[in-house]
Formats: sequence, structure tokens, C-alpha cells
Amino acid sequence: MVLYPHMTALDIVGPHEVLSRLPGATTTFVGAGAGRVPTDTGTLSLGDKADFSAVPAPDVVVVPGGRDVAAQLADAALRDWLRAVDAGATWMTSVCTGSLILGAAGLLEGRAATSHWIVRERLREFGAEPSPERVVVDGKYATAAGVSAGIDLALTLAARIAGPQVAQTIQLAIEYDPRPPFTAGSPTTAPAGIVGHLRANAHLIVTS
Amino acid sequence: MVLYPHMTALDIVGPHEVLSRLPGATTTFVGAGAGRVPTDTGTLSLGDKADFSAVPAPDVVVVPGGRDVAAQLADAALRDWLRAVDAGATWMTSVCTGSLILGAAGLLEGRAATSHWIVRERLREFGAEPSPERVVVDGKYATAAGVSAGIDLALTLAARIAGPQVAQTIQLAIEYDPRPPFTAGSPTTAPAGIVGHLRANAHLIVTS
Repeated sequence: MVLYPHMTALDIVGPHEVLSRLPGATTTFVGAGAGRVPTDTGTLSLGDKADFSAVPAPDVVVVPGGRDVAAQLADAALRDWLRAVDAGATWMTSVCTGSLILGAAGLLEGRAATSHWIVRERLREFGAEPSPERVVVDGKYATAAGVSAGIDLALTLAARIAGPQVAQTIQLAIEYDPRPPFTAGSPTTAPAGIVGHLRANAHLIVTS
Repeated sequence: MVLYPHMTALDIVGPHEVLSRLPGATTTFVGAGAGRVPTDTGTLSLGDKADFSAVPAPDVVVVPGGRDVAAQLADAALRDWLRAVDAGATWMTSVCTGSLILGAAGLLEGRAATSHWIVRERLREFGAEPSPERVVVDGKYATAAGVSAGIDLALTLAARIAGPQVAQTIQLAIEYDPRPPFTAGSPTTAPAGIVGHLRANAHLIVTS
């Protein structure tokens, strides 16, 4: 579970709440240097993480997104670690703008992938084919749409890793029976005025 | 946003991801003593929180749940703070077993409320009427079902606090268009075998 400064907290806490419940799983937080990181709301910090060098052979990698895409794409330490662990990992996954980081590491070339809807087309910069699906699995590379989509990604992974019975048990344990009070979670279903407002004010979602 | 040792991370990070996006909102984490807390998975810690004494007049209070219900119900400092801030607060809310804490503080007497499905009936110990709804609003007391229900609670609150346009904008910003890969999130929809397994192994969800 990758942590980096000014990431979006729910991007990693959603998947962690699911994947840490897999029988026999050990979840480790990892980033540049041991310690903790501030998240993109400023008031919440997450930890404790181990330094990249302490986690050379993860089975499953989850990369979260965050508002400051430019900073993420300039993060050479993260990119280098992702490239180094890719060969041995069973699953390389991302939530939200985390897929741009996988892309920048060269891991999505020629693959279908998704990201937060407001930056999804930028996947093309890294040779990936943007998909409007909420969770996209292409080989061992699984990417999720924005922020809350990490929960759906993680349940999908749980089923692939431990079988559908285990995934359903975890889903019931976290009572994931979503009932959004509005139909506004996707640019294809939200009222046009809401979509237009966010497109015109993309800085509310990503600042770069 | 209340933090206490061995709480469930998603219970507070879900609502925080929504409510921290309300225009003009200031979110503060609060608990017994400044610092951070370990969560119930053991590997993730959350912070930084202020001491209860530093937050005497919150507008909106969110109380998360956790696996160790007995420890939560024995937490006198939290109960005392909840009683003290109740009179001035606009909303007193909870996620998962957090409603048992509101109940233990005497705030749910005679009110409809919900909780994680596996402990929901225990609300009666505190004079509350258990409801099977995912989000229950009774006056200024709003309670949510287990773990992931905090996101639905927070969007409901966002609409009440700032209007439906703002709530829908936040929903689209976090791309909350859930697509669970299974229909197993509630004891009324999950396969009977899965429900029976968790009922017989309730310690997988709550340890006391």
C-alpha cells in the first residue's frame, strides 16, 4: 500500500479495509522514508510506512491518487520502486490518478486502464487505452476510477485472490451495500450542470 | 471527527473525504490526548488529533466504530465529551458501532438509529429503536450502518448542510458511482451461507 505526501486518503483506506481482511494477508504501507504522510485535505495524516527499500517483493501493490498530479508524475523514487517490484508482483493496481503513476513508470503501455474521469484521457500520454469502466483488469494490471472506486477494485481483487466466497464475506463484514442519496457519481449519470461545473473547475479535483 | 485506538479506519476516512470538501468546512480530528491512533487492522495509524479539551464546540460530530465494542463502551472520556458538546452541535452522527457509543452517552434514548447489522439489536440497551435503514436521521442524530455506510451518511449530511447541488458535486468529485462486484453487502441480500458464516463467527467483525 503506497503512501506519498498529499495523496487522497480514501484511495488507500478503502482498498486497505478490504484487502487487510483477506485470510493470511499482511498489509504494509510503503513510501519514501519511514514515517507518515499528510493527505490532500491537510488535516489527516496516515502511517506508519516503511521505506521503499524495506519492501522489495510485494505480492499486491496499490497506488493511490491525489490532487497534485504534477508532483506525482515527478516522483522518481516511487516510479523506480514500481518498476523494480513489477516483475515479482502478482497484482499491480491503482486508484484514481494513481494509474497515471503506473503509466509514468511505463507499466501501462498498450494496456486498457482507467483513472479519475477528469484526467482519464491523460492515460494516453503513457501509451494506455482509457476505458470508462469503474474497474479495469488487463493482465495483472488493475486500475480503478476516482477515489471511492478503490473499494470496488479491492473486492474484485479479493475474489481473484481468495475466491468469491471470501470476497462476499468481506463485503458483508464491511456492510458494503451502497445507497448513494443521489445519482451523481459519474459524468454519464450526474446532472449536466454538475458535470459542467466540475469540468470548468477541475482545480477542485486536481490542481495540476 | 473522533479518533480512538483500534477504531475502523474507513468509518472516519469515508465521511472525512466527503465532509472536508464542504465549502468553508474545517475538519478537526479529536480524541483523548493529541497525537495519533492505531486502527483495528494494526498496521494503519491515523492522526493528528487534538485533545478533547481543544474542541469544545463542534458543529458536526462523527463517531466511528471499531471491533472492540467493550472498550468503546468503557471509554468514559469520549462519552463525557459527547455529552458536553451535544447541546451546541448541529449534527451528532456515527458510523458502524459508533452508534453504540452515542447510545452509551445517553444521546439515542427514544430515537430510531442503526449500526453494523451484527450488533444492531444492541441499540436497545440504550433505549434506541434499531432500524434496518442504511442511514437513519432522527432529529439531529444521524447514524449509519457498518463501515462503508459512512460515505452515504456523509453525502446525506452534505445535502442537509449545504444543499443537494453541493452534495452532488462532491459525489461526482469522489466518483461515487458504486459497482460492487457481488450482491452481498447486507444480511438481507447476501447468500444465506455467507450470512450464517459471519453470524457464527461474529468475532471476525466485533471481538466483544
